Amino acid sequence: MNSIEIDIRVRYAETDAMGYLHHAQYFVYFEMGRTELLRRSGVSYRELEERGFFYVVARVECKFRLPARYDDQLVLRTTVERFSPVRVDHRYELLRDAALLAEARSTLACVGRDGRVVGLPDDVVARLGA
Amino acid sequence: MNSIEIDIRVRYAETDAMGYLHHAQYFVYFEMGRTELLRRSGVSYRELEERGFFYVVARVECKFRLPARYDDQLVLRTTVERFSPVRVDHRYELLRDAALLAEARSTLACVGRDGRVVGLPDDVVARLGA
Amino acid sequence: MNSIEIDIRVRYAETDAMGYLHHAQYFVYFEMGRTELLRRSGVSYRELEERGFFYVVARVECKFRLPARYDDQLVLRTTVERFSPVRVDHRYELLRDAALLAEARSTLACVGRDGRVVGLPDDVVARLGA
Amino acid sequence: MNSIEIDIRVRYAETDAMGYLHHAQYFVYFEMGRTELLRRSGVSYRELEERGFFYVVARVECKFRLPARYDDQLVLRTTVERFSPVRVDHRYELLRDAALLAEARSTLACVGRDGRVVGLPDDVVARLGA
Repeated sequence: MNSIEIDIRVRYAETDAMGYLHHAQYFVYFEMGRTELLRRSGVSYRELEERGFFYVVARVECKFRLPARYDDQLVLRTTVERFSPVRVDHRYELLRDAALLAEARSTLACVGRDGRVVGLPDDVVARLGA
Repeated sequence: MNSIEIDIRVRYAETDAMGYLHHAQYFVYFEMGRTELLRRSGVSYRELEERGFFYVVARVECKFRLPARYDDQLVLRTTVERFSPVRVDHRYELLRDAALLAEARSTLACVGRDGRVVGLPDDVVARLGA
Repeated sequence: MNSIEIDIRVRYAETDAMGYLHHAQYFVYFEMGRTELLRRSGVSYRELEERGFFYVVARVECKFRLPARYDDQLVLRTTVERFSPVRVDHRYELLRDAALLAEARSTLACVGRDGRVVGLPDDVVARLGA
Repeated sequence: MNSIEIDIRVRYAETDAMGYLHHAQYFVYFEMGRTELLRRSGVSYRELEERGFFYVVARVECKFRLPARYDDQLVLRTTVERFSPVRVDHRYELLRDAALLAEARSTLACVGRDGRVVGLPDDVVARLGA
């Protein structure tokens, strides 16, 4: 399972004075996509943190094509593009019906409690690398 | 020093589709007021946390009288109304020039790493209780 | 339909350095509860705004009893306690399984594009006042 | 004036359970940098919106090099890299003392109330293009 779609309803608090979903908020959505993609692979990110493994965002880029508004019902498609025990690259597409609102990419690194890069434990790699 | 005024400029991301500062954001401002009030008393909240003492919000109330907008230059007055080693009550007034936009109150409890109520260390009580 | 329960999963971005759901975020959840309660009554708040009617928050209070954490699956119960064409009072209970994490109340006023209090249109009052 | 430095103190609400400034929040800071860069050039973004001109974010990218924490005192350097009446490219560097925490770039388009690309008014172009 290297791709997942989740439904997201735009909250009022996420809009700005222009009447649009604020652009910083997209990255919160992308993080939700990653959480759910892990979960469907049988991995709880919360448990991963409790075991001392943390995913930190090393790089993001996003192209904003069309605005979203309050109460819009969106679909976020999150896909793993590249995976290794110490790094994962994701691609994101945010859609409202057939319209592509935004597309993005990110690179995350796996670090330990000390902030140093560390490989994910074998049981997690086995689930995610499948 | 049991009262402090700080300047806050409303950020674009803090507004909503109504064009107003979103009401949840006021509580973020109040927290800033508390941080600065502690700092002026010679107490760094960050250091307090590093020593294992945490202020958790037990109760808040806020009356919103007039809206604020993007780029408004506001003044937040934060006052300690009641203080003990395990609890502190604050009052807040958010102003734009002479206009009172909001007034609020909060009660915080001091807890340890385990989440249980604990008294602040003596050196901190001495500074804050003065 | 004067009460509704919605499911909310705590997002990573909503937590703070204490590891808890930040207290300002609760008010974002309460707003979601209001939106869904209106929707189940056949009223779209987005359409209400398009027709020139806006609900502004006049007062909130919240007691925080137990913290929530990242990825917690919560239930928010939102109830109308008092309703008139120009004002509505809500009560909120945020739960994780049987545990009551927070309880809150709010008062909203209905205003027009000019920010002055105005009564909701009759068709909306009919649906909400039932 | 095509570059500006502003001071930003990390707020508690901006941190996450990892204890770091949340990565989405960086984009809120960058927006603050743009607002202040315009202001120093004699242009109020708020007035620009009141005149019917809006800057929408078309693209962002950010590399996160080192984490920031609660209460860190940061410096954000915002620079115009390319400017035309319909588009502006910015570069951002977020620093804590001599350490570069993040570097980013964005492209904004100027649109009218209808969301279509439109050139900035001549008096604004004159100030910004100098």
